[in-house]
Amino acid sequence: MSDTETLAHLLAEAPSNWGRWGADDEIGALNYLTGAEVKSGLAAVRQHRTFTLGVPVATPAGDHVFPGRWPARHYMVADKAGFEAGHWHPMPGGLEFADDYVSGFAQAGTHCDALGHMWFDDTLWNGYPAASTNGGMTRAGIEPIAARGVVGRSVLIDMARFRGKPALARAETFDHRDLLECARAQGVEIQPRSILLVRTGWVGALRSGAETIGDGYWEPGLTFSLDLVRWFDEMQIPCLVTDSLANETTYEPRTGMMLVLHAALMRNLGVVFTEMAWLDDLAADCAADRQYDGFYCASPTRVSKGTGGSVNPVFIK
Amino acid sequence: MSDTETLAHLLAEAPSNWGRWGADDEIGALNYLTGAEVKSGLAAVRQHRTFTLGVPVATPAGDHVFPGRWPARHYMVADKAGFEAGHWHPMPGGLEFADDYVSGFAQAGTHCDALGHMWFDDTLWNGYPAASTNGGMTRAGIEPIAARGVVGRSVLIDMARFRGKPALARAETFDHRDLLECARAQGVEIQPRSILLVRTGWVGALRSGAETIGDGYWEPGLTFSLDLVRWFDEMQIPCLVTDSLANETTYEPRTGMMLVLHAALMRNLGVVFTEMAWLDDLAADCAADRQYDGFYCASPTRVSKGTGGSVNPVFIK
Amino acid sequence: MSDTETLAHLLAEAPSNWGRWGADDEIGALNYLTGAEVKSGLAAVRQHRTFTLGVPVATPAGDHVFPGRWPARHYMVADKAGFEAGHWHPMPGGLEFADDYVSGFAQAGTHCDALGHMWFDDTLWNGYPAASTNGGMTRAGIEPIAARGVVGRSVLIDMARFRGKPALARAETFDHRDLLECARAQGVEIQPRSILLVRTGWVGALRSGAETIGDGYWEPGLTFSLDLVRWFDEMQIPCLVTDSLANETTYEPRTGMMLVLHAALMRNLGVVFTEMAWLDDLAADCAADRQYDGFYCASPTRVSKGTGGSVNPVFIK
Amino acid sequence: MSDTETLAHLLAEAPSNWGRWGADDEIGALNYLTGAEVKSGLAAVRQHRTFTLGVPVATPAGDHVFPGRWPARHYMVADKAGFEAGHWHPMPGGLEFADDYVSGFAQAGTHCDALGHMWFDDTLWNGYPAASTNGGMTRAGIEPIAARGVVGRSVLIDMARFRGKPALARAETFDHRDLLECARAQGVEIQPRSILLVRTGWVGALRSGAETIGDGYWEPGLTFSLDLVRWFDEMQIPCLVTDSLANETTYEPRTGMMLVLHAALMRNLGVVFTEMAWLDDLAADCAADRQYDGFYCASPTRVSKGTGGSVNPVFIK
Repeated sequence: MSDTETLAHLLAEAPSNWGRWGADDEIGALNYLTGAEVKSGLAAVRQHRTFTLGVPVATPAGDHVFPGRWPARHYMVADKAGFEAGHWHPMPGGLEFADDYVSGFAQAGTHCDALGHMWFDDTLWNGYPAASTNGGMTRAGIEPIAARGVVGRSVLIDMARFRGKPALARAETFDHRDLLECARAQGVEIQPRSILLVRTGWVGALRSGAETIGDGYWEPGLTFSLDLVRWFDEMQIPCLVTDSLANETTYEPRTGMMLVLHAALMRNLGVVFTEMAWLDDLAADCAADRQYDGFYCASPTRVSKGTGGSVNPVFIK
Repeated sequence: MSDTETLAHLLAEAPSNWGRWGADDEIGALNYLTGAEVKSGLAAVRQHRTFTLGVPVATPAGDHVFPGRWPARHYMVADKAGFEAGHWHPMPGGLEFADDYVSGFAQAGTHCDALGHMWFDDTLWNGYPAASTNGGMTRAGIEPIAARGVVGRSVLIDMARFRGKPALARAETFDHRDLLECARAQGVEIQPRSILLVRTGWVGALRSGAETIGDGYWEPGLTFSLDLVRWFDEMQIPCLVTDSLANETTYEPRTGMMLVLHAALMRNLGVVFTEMAWLDDLAADCAADRQYDGFYCASPTRVSKGTGGSVNPVFIK
Repeated sequence: MSDTETLAHLLAEAPSNWGRWGADDEIGALNYLTGAEVKSGLAAVRQHRTFTLGVPVATPAGDHVFPGRWPARHYMVADKAGFEAGHWHPMPGGLEFADDYVSGFAQAGTHCDALGHMWFDDTLWNGYPAASTNGGMTRAGIEPIAARGVVGRSVLIDMARFRGKPALARAETFDHRDLLECARAQGVEIQPRSILLVRTGWVGALRSGAETIGDGYWEPGLTFSLDLVRWFDEMQIPCLVTDSLANETTYEPRTGMMLVLHAALMRNLGVVFTEMAWLDDLAADCAADRQYDGFYCASPTRVSKGTGGSVNPVFIK
Repeated sequence: MSDTETLAHLLAEAPSNWGRWGADDEIGALNYLTGAEVKSGLAAVRQHRTFTLGVPVATPAGDHVFPGRWPARHYMVADKAGFEAGHWHPMPGGLEFADDYVSGFAQAGTHCDALGHMWFDDTLWNGYPAASTNGGMTRAGIEPIAARGVVGRSVLIDMARFRGKPALARAETFDHRDLLECARAQGVEIQPRSILLVRTGWVGALRSGAETIGDGYWEPGLTFSLDLVRWFDEMQIPCLVTDSLANETTYEPRTGMMLVLHAALMRNLGVVFTEMAWLDDLAADCAADRQYDGFYCASPTRVSKGTGGSVNPVFIK
């Protein structure tokens, strides 16, 4: 790997928030979400209608997961047939129960990444050593994010509908200027500290079978530029939520580097990534009533030492 | 088992909501949470301060679980040491990653029960046959609850503090009249359709080691009476959230029947149970500022065919 | 499904061993393996050289599994890096340890099927009701087979080499007459009660990547005829071991029925199936020294209530 | 920890086999088991009667595991009730199936330890660095042992019966001189390169409930002395098999060091440890017919990168 092909080289001039919230910070840009942002989020509610953005987890057909992972699974432990077969016995009074077990990546289904989930140059968010991932996250894991929650005003940017497609194509990209254009067309403003929901239609395409995960997998999504990183920094975006598996296009087209925004936004700026959200129902509703902003409330499972946690975000219009 | 010792006998005169929301209903008393309740929930926010109520999951020491279950576990799949050992290779550009796996009951940590999780007389909530639990929940599972979310006004009833204890004792009970007395002492009103948070201090006692789970385990909590069930019905309580493992005292003291309120409130009335919430921090704060109500927003993991799902509820004062 | 397309119809005239070893039998044709067969197995040892026939389990690239299953996985729980990170502490004296966790189908890697693993007409081996599989095998599970062990004289039939190929082709079939011809060519006799090892080269082709598992997966292997079933019955074959995932060609070519020999040999005759054995090294050795028989000793993991168990058979020439 | 309390100090004069079988060796004392030992093992067979020594795995009540581990679990994936509920569909022809999943430590049930499972001074068997355990065993894992198998002549030493007890007491110890005395009383000889089976009765006591695993757990078993280590070395014992969870008394009584023989025999001499074997049935039979030797054949599951593997050894008299 030549020096010019490294993230270190690519991001040499890019902004960083390391140290901004102290040497012990583990929640990064969530620090932007203060009481004022909770208040402006609540003020965005006008219809009192609720949407949940989590996809089903441990589905029989096998969840869609990023290459290298494998699907979550669901196992029944107790059911009525198990009682009939004598493996279980009714409680005093007669109560019986169904019980079940789930195994999967901490980042199963719709999920938040911990800030330390990805890194380069042996250093995580805020300067923590990469060795703090060994055997479980001792720094920049999902616990502090889960303890904090992600609550504020949110804006949905429906890139797929803006481009007149059910879903963006493989490797199709866009950047912050596209987000702004789309917002303008939608009649909504991306304000500073907005929780950004970006719809590509990709998870819908995976779920319908229109797209599949295989060799040469290349998601559509945001693509790197220094300007884009600076825009996220200046706008103080606390959290980026998309309906793709990795929140950005898989490869930076010019250099072929992989998941560059995980480095530029998550590792360097502390933006919390929320991946694989289900945005199609919300987007159809927004297209109908033209209200694209609302109150967002999400809090992932508080996985001890975890690199991430499943989440089922709530959006209230 | 004589007829008089059965739940069927005990609950013969107790109210039921079966059919109230149609033959296909799977969310029960969550139907009470309409836009009006979202609105009154938002109206309860006065300080814009946020609390999360989920306990850590898959802790190294082993989570506290109801007897018969076993603790969730966390496994690192990829970490820095794994990259150094050659099990993993950096992505183009240099990005490395930590990844991890979790296995545990669908009802791991703080969680919502599906309405079909427990039953008697071979019949679940709304009259569904118990056989619909076989191999996975085909009726009254957690998915419709997760898709809906639990959003509205909530009231914390701090029974432990009301009784002047860090935690209620083993097998200590209380009922709806105690809840009302406690609310009065706290200066807060349990309004119809309030999401009810009841603190016993029990999860805190388990986490501190003051209490342990073993033979003869008997939690403190709400205890059955026909009047209590009628009160929940008349108050249209949509969701009961407590800091104990099973939301009620383990055995009904008079008859010795087990988990009677799971039958009376969950199976019969469709009240959604949320168990093992972390209420100690919220309660300390409420004791300090005397604001015991707020906005509650919770949405469990959408486990396919699941009997429940982990949840990390958000409470905003 | 018309009546003529059913296994019941196809096998109406086929032999059955139900009841032959009593109403409680759960080991079927392993009953043929008495002390006399142990003795003849030991007598077949001439060189005192040992081979193991188990494939690696929970490999990083993902084990090869029959469609519908998913690969076993290996997770480190404790390693040196975990000690350095403080997740683990040395024992008194200074000992440290590595520990790990495995999850996978009971039939992971090379494995024995329990006699009740597959059935039709709601009836398992020996007439047990299919409901005895509910919630765990209460009849005809792997435990009695594991407690017994599979020990005796064995013969390797190298069909792939006999046909001059590294591996048989997709959907390529053969029957008992081919086995006899191949044995003759190899200069070895299939005696009554021989443990039959049949090499197709298929697992080798999967491991090398020459073949893959995907849509329309169709293994080569033995194919059904009434004569073949009668030959297995008359020869009193106790155990059939192959290097394919399911021990027989996936579909019966004439009718399109699936896994017919699981019905005819396993369910009806009680022949123990051992699948996905690694036979390439043994076969190369046999081709070199022309000794195709030997002592076979295998005992699967004794999985409680299991439908099968992993096994690493030993073959001694 | 003072220097005199370390294993390094304790074992400074103890023998080591590092390098004896080359710098790449991963099977240690199994190198002693050549064709000659297979031959003498076969010669020990006089009755052609077979015993299996594996305990049930993933039992409903929870397997007995060393403190710090947790029991293996068994989950049904498919059963008859699942077919009736529509989760599964019959194959063409009508075949249905039961399928199941197991998760547990690689060292679940009766198992072999890999030589690198435990270490001190940052160095594994044969001098491999402890870092080779990171993320999976790259040296001295279970795979080479599984590929080799453990085959030879074996002798059962029934210490519990020799001392007239159903099981040895907590923390009760014995050494090589006791083994020799017991062998003499049994009328059998421990020959060089014998696979040593030592019965304490402990697993039987755990299974019957006479003993339990809890705070202060202290198994009976072999206890350290330099003479004992030298005896194992001189006798070239390839494999030590016992019916306790850790093959030796938990703490060395004089110094309080833990699992000293794992250091002295496994790490330093390369003796393969096989733990938690079921010896009670075999021992009762040996007591009856006075034949204490036989042929031993064991081959653990070949867990990729594993620290150990489940095994169900076969003993033939």
